[in-house]
Amino acid sequence: MSIDHSKIRWNGWGWTAHKDQLAEDEAMWTWLAGELGMPALLATPARPLESVTLAPSRLTVEDRVRFIEILGAERVRGDQYERAFHARGRSYHDLICLRSGDLSTAPDAVLYPRSTDEVLATLAAAGEGGVAVVPYGGGTSVVGGVTGGHGRFKSVVALDLSAMDRVIDIDAQSMTATVEAGIYGPALEKALQAKGLTLGHHPQSFEFSTLGGWIAHRGAGQGSNRYGRAEDWLVGTKVATPRGVLHTGGFPASSAGPRLNDLVLGSEGVFGVVTEATVRLHPLPTASDYYGYLFKDFASGIAAIRAAAREEIPVTMLRLSDPMETKFYRAFGSLGKKRTLRDRFAQFYLTNRGFDEKACAMIAGFEGETTTVVDERLRFDVLAKKHGALALGEGQGKRWKEGRFHGPYMRDPMMDRGVGVDTLETAASWSKLDGLYIAVRDALESAIRENAPRAGAHGVVSCHISHSYPDGASLYFTYIFPRMLDGEIAQWRAIKKAASDAIIANGGTISHHHGVGEDHLPWMAAEKGSLGIDILRAVKMALDPKGILNPGKLIPD
Amino acid sequence: MSIDHSKIRWNGWGWTAHKDQLAEDEAMWTWLAGELGMPALLATPARPLESVTLAPSRLTVEDRVRFIEILGAERVRGDQYERAFHARGRSYHDLICLRSGDLSTAPDAVLYPRSTDEVLATLAAAGEGGVAVVPYGGGTSVVGGVTGGHGRFKSVVALDLSAMDRVIDIDAQSMTATVEAGIYGPALEKALQAKGLTLGHHPQSFEFSTLGGWIAHRGAGQGSNRYGRAEDWLVGTKVATPRGVLHTGGFPASSAGPRLNDLVLGSEGVFGVVTEATVRLHPLPTASDYYGYLFKDFASGIAAIRAAAREEIPVTMLRLSDPMETKFYRAFGSLGKKRTLRDRFAQFYLTNRGFDEKACAMIAGFEGETTTVVDERLRFDVLAKKHGALALGEGQGKRWKEGRFHGPYMRDPMMDRGVGVDTLETAASWSKLDGLYIAVRDALESAIRENAPRAGAHGVVSCHISHSYPDGASLYFTYIFPRMLDGEIAQWRAIKKAASDAIIANGGTISHHHGVGEDHLPWMAAEKGSLGIDILRAVKMALDPKGILNPGKLIPD
Repeated sequence: MSIDHSKIRWNGWGWTAHKDQLAEDEAMWTWLAGELGMPALLATPARPLESVTLAPSRLTVEDRVRFIEILGAERVRGDQYERAFHARGRSYHDLICLRSGDLSTAPDAVLYPRSTDEVLATLAAAGEGGVAVVPYGGGTSVVGGVTGGHGRFKSVVALDLSAMDRVIDIDAQSMTATVEAGIYGPALEKALQAKGLTLGHHPQSFEFSTLGGWIAHRGAGQGSNRYGRAEDWLVGTKVATPRGVLHTGGFPASSAGPRLNDLVLGSEGVFGVVTEATVRLHPLPTASDYYGYLFKDFASGIAAIRAAAREEIPVTMLRLSDPMETKFYRAFGSLGKKRTLRDRFAQFYLTNRGFDEKACAMIAGFEGETTTVVDERLRFDVLAKKHGALALGEGQGKRWKEGRFHGPYMRDPMMDRGVGVDTLETAASWSKLDGLYIAVRDALESAIRENAPRAGAHGVVSCHISHSYPDGASLYFTYIFPRMLDGEIAQWRAIKKAASDAIIANGGTISHHHGVGEDHLPWMAAEKGSLGIDILRAVKMALDPKGILNPGKLIPD
Repeated sequence: MSIDHSKIRWNGWGWTAHKDQLAEDEAMWTWLAGELGMPALLATPARPLESVTLAPSRLTVEDRVRFIEILGAERVRGDQYERAFHARGRSYHDLICLRSGDLSTAPDAVLYPRSTDEVLATLAAAGEGGVAVVPYGGGTSVVGGVTGGHGRFKSVVALDLSAMDRVIDIDAQSMTATVEAGIYGPALEKALQAKGLTLGHHPQSFEFSTLGGWIAHRGAGQGSNRYGRAEDWLVGTKVATPRGVLHTGGFPASSAGPRLNDLVLGSEGVFGVVTEATVRLHPLPTASDYYGYLFKDFASGIAAIRAAAREEIPVTMLRLSDPMETKFYRAFGSLGKKRTLRDRFAQFYLTNRGFDEKACAMIAGFEGETTTVVDERLRFDVLAKKHGALALGEGQGKRWKEGRFHGPYMRDPMMDRGVGVDTLETAASWSKLDGLYIAVRDALESAIRENAPRAGAHGVVSCHISHSYPDGASLYFTYIFPRMLDGEIAQWRAIKKAASDAIIANGGTISHHHGVGEDHLPWMAAEKGSLGIDILRAVKMALDPKGILNPGKLIPD
């Protein structure tokens, strides 16, 4: 296993050893309570695993023996930590369950295959035994994509791909690599960068997610403007299904019928288990420059992003925060510190230039060959200033880049203090984006007020645009709210439903890069249509006729 | 109807009024006979339609009445010209049949719906009546994609979409257009260019093919490096199927499960009829510059294309001819004309600089905003010269651009002279491209010799690279051969099989942009695998359970 699971939190984010500095920042907590309309925050620690009793494994002796014959005893795990670790993904909803000690979705065993053949044999044995199989990469799903549901089956196993992490081939001439799907982000990049190459796929989960997971949920990294989404960099896949091996793609382009790569992308383990993939690489950039800008409002920032797309400036990332996110991040940086004369002067300068509470921060990133990066950056600089932006320099950009994977760590200390924090994302065409932004923000704010633990309590709803396209962009919402401790799941569900309904009603997709899992399932029929769902069911039936793979995800019953 | 079909050839390419200057160029024909190892060429004129008797329509009165009730009598056509026009596509194989008067695949009627609802009603009526339906756009398929086969059904109709050619909406903010799928290339570009926009999709068939056809066969235009393949510019589709309307896509990006656009792309009318599509646009370029280069050999030209991809120079097109294509085009330009002193000097200069019979011509195209086009062109110019190229200037580029849609017209006069000419194309990763090129070229040359009308006769096999990607490129073969008049179909099939087997054996796709149709069907299982074919069958069953749509195409039985 490329990462020792015992060193990662089973009920929170990332390394167990990581202590977030936020936890002890009492000034911040006092401020946050005020922002949420709460007199004070509560202590709501998670239950330690030692105090939780798991239900006994439902796996029959026959099934266990079958799996052991295929994988060896040490790769068929039934210990408490392994089962708890694989019980769920890492969404806010998952964390509520896990922190409360609800391990009802813990798999009955965790299997660690080492080859496509072992996966095939495991699927065959599971099919014979009537055992559900949940394919599991890094387990960082935030949409309920790896919940250990046994559905109508008598038991369920997690199929953890992390022992399949070999780089099989790097084709430097074609700039592609063929890699086992269980490899984690850092191990993959280390192997590629040793050859002067990069995939450049850096989702926020990068440190703890796997290549197979990125493909299975059709992900997008922070630099997808340059490096592409999973559908852009995927050349081909090898997928183990209950009916045998499916190979898809393998060509730079083809018109030999529908592109089956695109049925694997976003299939979330319900059609098969991605065991290998061939991916497109880039030369390792010789320059990687990130800069900060401040726009007077969200609209002028959006106009700049749209203009950059139209003028085809090859940016790596344009990440525009709305006024609330801008204010919130600024506050986080200055709390607990006395305001200096310099801070006061900066504030005076900004106000004087017309940057008030509507101001929006942007991080603009440029990667590639040094001379072209300089050109691109200057072109964007001219464009941003034409849209009224103030250049904040590379300090802001560097800080963003250093903390690019840190966000999810902040959730755990918040959850220790009675604060909920969740994110959701969507995308729409430029002409629908403004309306979608307002509708979802309003829906979140209303739903949080209506589902607050006390009158007058409310949330902090912030948003950023992080992925842009010629025809539109994504919206990524982060919302922080006081938890309703006597009905946390219902509270979460009410807020989620309000936002998701607003997304569908306003022309957004139910997910831009998180996927579907269990959480977005109720909106899939609205997005894909009944014939679209029929297609997914037909493909499922063709590849997994017994339905053992990841029951309850992606495809509505 | 946006093009009057009576003005287009039913048994050849393009406008009936077009007289190709090649036809009367006797010096060229004498030279060509020599190149093919033939003492002389034969006169092999096509049979005029008046001399051919079509089989009576098999459409029952009940079915005809049903269709007339839906579409009106004037949109249910059964006259000889309409049936002959829609009997087949426009491949070499199709032309052999059509020119010989074999109209056995003529549809029993040709239907012209005007709306998605009419298409749905037509499909319902066809399903009830047991009538096969061949969706028909421009009919320029070169892979047997629109052959009017009735399969196991009692009759067959062609469903001609050309009356559905409205531009429904142009969203200038999102840079997208929603258009009915039956629109021809020129009408679409005219509407877009009036708004300062372009789709930029220019296949060689541009003048006579439709938006729906481009999507259905997953096409690529000549400028796809810049404007993208159909899968890149397609935002969403509306598809009429026997089970109702399927909407796919509609977002700039989404991770809400598999992207169903990609099942429509390349579906070739077997899942449904694309009736509307939303497509991504570009600003109309202010500069469009095409230049000629001469490389010392194919390898150095390929190296330059690969380097341009790696250095991310945003070219619109790099079209590299192999030595035979270079020689052939050069000869075509100088035949019948006396060599001037200037020609002799040019030849001396080239030979002296090391450009011999291995030399390879390239057309490099750059489109976009004027200043960036200049930058891109200069960057490529430096790169090309680094790879030993000689710049030939813009004259060559202009000539190529003026004749960019002319190629297929040359086939008809050749077929009048006993000469066969066919094309096929593939793509592979860079590391496989050299081997694939040699294998397919050798297979074609051998198969043509083995299937020649007399000992010593042979073919002219030429190739170019016209579409490149970071990980590989396409190969487009044109082969000219003396026809075996007493077994033309068998000759064609033997040559096609040899090349296709070589493609599959050497890591190429069976089609880069022509599609599958009937002609590539025998190689689909090798490319997609048996599970891949099962998926296609499952989708077919979900959308077209009676199998009435385009029988015998895309999916092997």
